Amino acid sequence: MPKFMDVHHGMQGITAEQLLEAHQANQAIEGDEGVRFEEAWADPESGEVFCLSEAPSADAVRRVHERSGHQVEEIHPVPLHV
Amino acid sequence: MPKFMDVHHGMQGITAEQLLEAHQANQAIEGDEGVRFEEAWADPESGEVFCLSEAPSADAVRRVHERSGHQVEEIHPVPLHV
Repeated sequence: MPKFMDVHHGMQGITAEQLLEAHQANQAIEGDEGVRFEEAWADPESGEVFCLSEAPSADAVRRVHERSGHQVEEIHPVPLHV
Repeated sequence: MPKFMDVHHGMQGITAEQLLEAHQANQAIEGDEGVRFEEAWADPESGEVFCLSEAPSADAVRRVHERSGHQVEEIHPVPLHV
């Protein structure tokens, strides 16, 4: 299954609890789209959030984020990994 | 040790071999700066490359990339992780 790295901007001030809640909100519905969110990293200062997932398509990743109420600005397929 | 996600733009067409070579070039000298590059993901279509590392500072990450010949546009501390 393809991997994706999506990027959220503008999340300045995000807390560990908010990141966990967002991740869990995605995981609660990801099965509907065949997505599996694996890890997420956040920089509260710049407001960047990076989410790594496995998914059938970028649109599937976008739909899960949107249903969870999280706007996502970039979704990159990342077929290469080391 | 703090974690960082750095982002490279403009790497359109990057191959699996080139990503591995770049990662290994970083790893060959990272000890000089106390950095440990863990994983990297690349999107050959958009040219985005994401590198996850542990490092004493963003400057240390930048110096390793620059000595390896890789310009890096963004270096984000990512203290939050799920």
